[in-house]
Amino acid sequence: MPSYKAPLRDTRFLLNEVFDFPAHYQALANGGEATPDMVEAILGECAKLCEEVIAPLYHSGDEEGCHLENGEVRTPKGYKEAYDAYVAGGWQGLSHPVEYGGQGLPMSLGALKQEMLGTANWPFSMYPGLSLGAMNTLMQHGTEEQKRTYLTPLTEGRWAGTMCLTEPQCGTDLGQVKTRAEANADGSYALTGTKIFISSGDHDLTENIIHIVLARLPDAPKGTRGISLFIVPKFLPGDDGGLGPRNGVSCGALEKKMGIKASATCVMNFDGATGYLIGPPNKGLECMFTFMNSARIGTAIQGVATAELAYQGALAYARERRSMRALSGTKEPGEVADVLMHHGDVRRMLLTQKAVAEGGRALVYLATQYADRMIEGILQNDNDKYERWDDKLGFLTPILKGCLTELGLESANLGMQVFGGHGYIREHGMEQIVRDARIATLYEGTTGIQALDLLGRKVLLMTQGKAVRDFSGQVARLALDLLKTEPAMRGRALTLLKLAGQWNVLTLRIALRARKDRDLVGTASHDFLMYSGYAALAYAWALQEAAARRRLREGGAESEDFYRAKLATSAFYFDRLLPRAKGHASAMLKPTKSVMGLQDEHFLFE
Amino acid sequence: MPSYKAPLRDTRFLLNEVFDFPAHYQALANGGEATPDMVEAILGECAKLCEEVIAPLYHSGDEEGCHLENGEVRTPKGYKEAYDAYVAGGWQGLSHPVEYGGQGLPMSLGALKQEMLGTANWPFSMYPGLSLGAMNTLMQHGTEEQKRTYLTPLTEGRWAGTMCLTEPQCGTDLGQVKTRAEANADGSYALTGTKIFISSGDHDLTENIIHIVLARLPDAPKGTRGISLFIVPKFLPGDDGGLGPRNGVSCGALEKKMGIKASATCVMNFDGATGYLIGPPNKGLECMFTFMNSARIGTAIQGVATAELAYQGALAYARERRSMRALSGTKEPGEVADVLMHHGDVRRMLLTQKAVAEGGRALVYLATQYADRMIEGILQNDNDKYERWDDKLGFLTPILKGCLTELGLESANLGMQVFGGHGYIREHGMEQIVRDARIATLYEGTTGIQALDLLGRKVLLMTQGKAVRDFSGQVARLALDLLKTEPAMRGRALTLLKLAGQWNVLTLRIALRARKDRDLVGTASHDFLMYSGYAALAYAWALQEAAARRRLREGGAESEDFYRAKLATSAFYFDRLLPRAKGHASAMLKPTKSVMGLQDEHFLFE
Repeated sequence: MPSYKAPLRDTRFLLNEVFDFPAHYQALANGGEATPDMVEAILGECAKLCEEVIAPLYHSGDEEGCHLENGEVRTPKGYKEAYDAYVAGGWQGLSHPVEYGGQGLPMSLGALKQEMLGTANWPFSMYPGLSLGAMNTLMQHGTEEQKRTYLTPLTEGRWAGTMCLTEPQCGTDLGQVKTRAEANADGSYALTGTKIFISSGDHDLTENIIHIVLARLPDAPKGTRGISLFIVPKFLPGDDGGLGPRNGVSCGALEKKMGIKASATCVMNFDGATGYLIGPPNKGLECMFTFMNSARIGTAIQGVATAELAYQGALAYARERRSMRALSGTKEPGEVADVLMHHGDVRRMLLTQKAVAEGGRALVYLATQYADRMIEGILQNDNDKYERWDDKLGFLTPILKGCLTELGLESANLGMQVFGGHGYIREHGMEQIVRDARIATLYEGTTGIQALDLLGRKVLLMTQGKAVRDFSGQVARLALDLLKTEPAMRGRALTLLKLAGQWNVLTLRIALRARKDRDLVGTASHDFLMYSGYAALAYAWALQEAAARRRLREGGAESEDFYRAKLATSAFYFDRLLPRAKGHASAMLKPTKSVMGLQDEHFLFE
Repeated sequence: MPSYKAPLRDTRFLLNEVFDFPAHYQALANGGEATPDMVEAILGECAKLCEEVIAPLYHSGDEEGCHLENGEVRTPKGYKEAYDAYVAGGWQGLSHPVEYGGQGLPMSLGALKQEMLGTANWPFSMYPGLSLGAMNTLMQHGTEEQKRTYLTPLTEGRWAGTMCLTEPQCGTDLGQVKTRAEANADGSYALTGTKIFISSGDHDLTENIIHIVLARLPDAPKGTRGISLFIVPKFLPGDDGGLGPRNGVSCGALEKKMGIKASATCVMNFDGATGYLIGPPNKGLECMFTFMNSARIGTAIQGVATAELAYQGALAYARERRSMRALSGTKEPGEVADVLMHHGDVRRMLLTQKAVAEGGRALVYLATQYADRMIEGILQNDNDKYERWDDKLGFLTPILKGCLTELGLESANLGMQVFGGHGYIREHGMEQIVRDARIATLYEGTTGIQALDLLGRKVLLMTQGKAVRDFSGQVARLALDLLKTEPAMRGRALTLLKLAGQWNVLTLRIALRARKDRDLVGTASHDFLMYSGYAALAYAWALQEAAARRRLREGGAESEDFYRAKLATSAFYFDRLLPRAKGHASAMLKPTKSVMGLQDEHFLFE
């Protein structure tokens, strides 16, 4: 059973030595409170809560699962108490406005919290996680009254929230949404329809649940332009700020799933439920997608969390399980066999997990700096700033959501693999990580949707390649800087320069050919996404290696071991994982015919 | 829920048009009975049994699982009846000697049966599958009396068998086996110890179960040279061929697993159980490993089975689920959206599954021709022949077991991915395929063990690279032949020549460097394995494409569609999957330091 220890050493390295968060916070309008002492206190307290209260419920929650009893969802034993402890610590409102009950700290600190919470127990973390979606939507699009009524109890964690998008006939293609909203005499609406796959749709952690629901007004245009957004509370708010009558929304069934069994995935029935329009009519999708990038970064964190937890579990096992002798000769002659750590292929698996966890973490932290800036733009009503940073975040988002969840799943599978046959047995806990990780490439937009969002939308349609030019320019500038300052990284710098150039050439060639052959975007998108992910991770590893070398050169570190480990992991990444980008670079430019050429009816012959 | 249809069209193509099995059987000492009519009858009957009787139990067996009641294992509803139907058809003894109740047909036909059975319902197929292991061991190493007593009822399917190797402290490293065997006065032995992960260790399908058990004699040398092999029946055989007293072997617990839940994975306790030595004392591992190659080909089949079943399920869904519009413009204007088949990335996933299933199937059929020849050597007491073909089989075995199970798992995951969020829900059946497939890279030697077996043992130690020279020579000869006969395949031929050359160069460079740095074998083995897998699949696809082109040129096919689909899938393989070999080629030669350099205690800092 893997037990979770928060990787605080790595977090501090990224915050202080790689990305200079102290300076970032100092320059940030709402960053004044985020002093180094405050950040350190948050890290310590959050780690304690996650390690001691939340993580111990990970396996038992999977075994017990959620249950639907008399139309109400019961969460696993201990969840309510853990949630109460989380709320008591003020964690839910960490990055939300003080005026609505939050602590007003930057978004990036919320992401740090989410990472620890999610690594300790991903299914648990989905309850507060989904609330964040509802809170963000209210914060951005709610009226002052809606914010007072709903945002405050959500921020305080007394209430929870959901996002109700998917219906049986549509998930990605929300233009097919059928749920109807008909105007009541009092200005509210009556919502009727069925939503599926609603995470935290019902549960016993909070006294009320606020559903943010996509539905159609009677006169709405067809497709995506006719969808509006509604607030549908489980209990209508009472006049005194307490709870009013039970609303006509209920959980019809719990889905039986491969994993995340402690997270309630509900079929939600709306039977003339009272709802309140949020945002302008027929603009529901735009409103819903305002915070899509940050929601997807939240899911990208699942990739990091998965890799980290599987790594911790596999490493502990590899250090104690004895099998065979090392190829280079017996290492522990007094023992019946050498521990797994001495076997090259086991180390390859562990280092893959480590490179994904630490490299992915670095990319997430970088993205959250962009998110902080984007939100600063919102707070300052500075639309230029908002758009500038949202664009930077928007480019990284599908790369992180798409690649880190895929690599997180691979890392979870490697965790099982290190355990051999024991990995397949439930009591060891490694297979749960795989089952739980498996959802990450599916929800919040599948990997295929991320790939299209990246190549089709963010790179080609919205920026005509500028998004790649900007980010690869950043990579190239790092490389040029390294050529001047880090002679030992000359090889890395040349690799980065080559990558930056190739990334642009690939983009340009796709852009040119896609003009004549629109299918190319679809056939190239997956390979382009994965290529971009490996390139971004190369950037993240070069940044970390450079910071580690700087520190080693300057001296003064309590121990050099941590920094030397960074150099070793960077070497592993560049030697063993980055070469995969070659295959993706080669595949993406192949003729569309080899994907689109086979006639639909000729895929299978009996 | 995926429903299984046996891919008979593809099977016939491979048997008759790619590998010329009719000629193969005609030339084979025990192949006379395997006339085209007989083979066709076997395919048809086997498909019927698998589609109508075995496949319908796949999902229900997973939901119900196995249960231990009063020390006896109860299999899921319908398993006993299905097993009886299987036995009544004479399927268990298909490829085993007539004198012991079998049909005496070539091994390759048994593999065809295993593939259909395993695709229809892998967990079910493990009950007869494990018996085959016991049967092979008895056939090769049993005395005449042991064969009469045990092999006949096993071949008839009245009894079942197991292989008891793993113990809590060791799986791969069987030198650590502790189970003791002490001589009784009557020439039998008393076995005491605990075995774990014993598939089919107990069940209610047959009246008796014959365990083949690894144990140590009291005076045995330490390690692998002190292990002997024993027959331990659940019920001792009675004098009349019936059942005698219950033996001291019992199922202590059923493992709770990620998947293959309908297959009973037992902890087996031996409490002074009566056993009979099979083969020479202290030569148990050699005896056990005689048929290791064919057992591992049996597991390689799981990769093909997984890819095929996931493909059939995903294809059906992609043909009916509607989402968004095709990038190249609306395909079905009368419908609310286009079906998934029109999306490039969905087609990429489907074609990956198809290329793995059909390419893997071709490699398995090729391997079974080698197995037929190897067994002919045994039957004819022609040791040269036996060794020649066992060597060829031995080279392909880790490649197929290692790569096809990894790619089968990838294909199963792609099957879920095509379903989007619905893939994660149990009722759709796609997640079960992933959970069931997950064991394949773990048992019968993990992927890491296959990689070491290939590079360390089969390529470097046993043949000093000759194994690669031989097989790549076969690839190069095909390429040269294609250059002469198939002008349209000039590109493919050049690719194959380059691959064949590169494969040898990589081998040579590893061999030279491994002399000075033994760790290189461990750090390169995984990439070498996967590279070899992609190279072997390229050979399989070139063979299929050539056969399809030949047929299209010669005409006379009832429909050209099947052959055109082969060309399209081959193009997909060469364009989109083979490029992955580049990454592996690049990674395997990197310095061992980037894997071995990080000190064990520096993997994690808190």
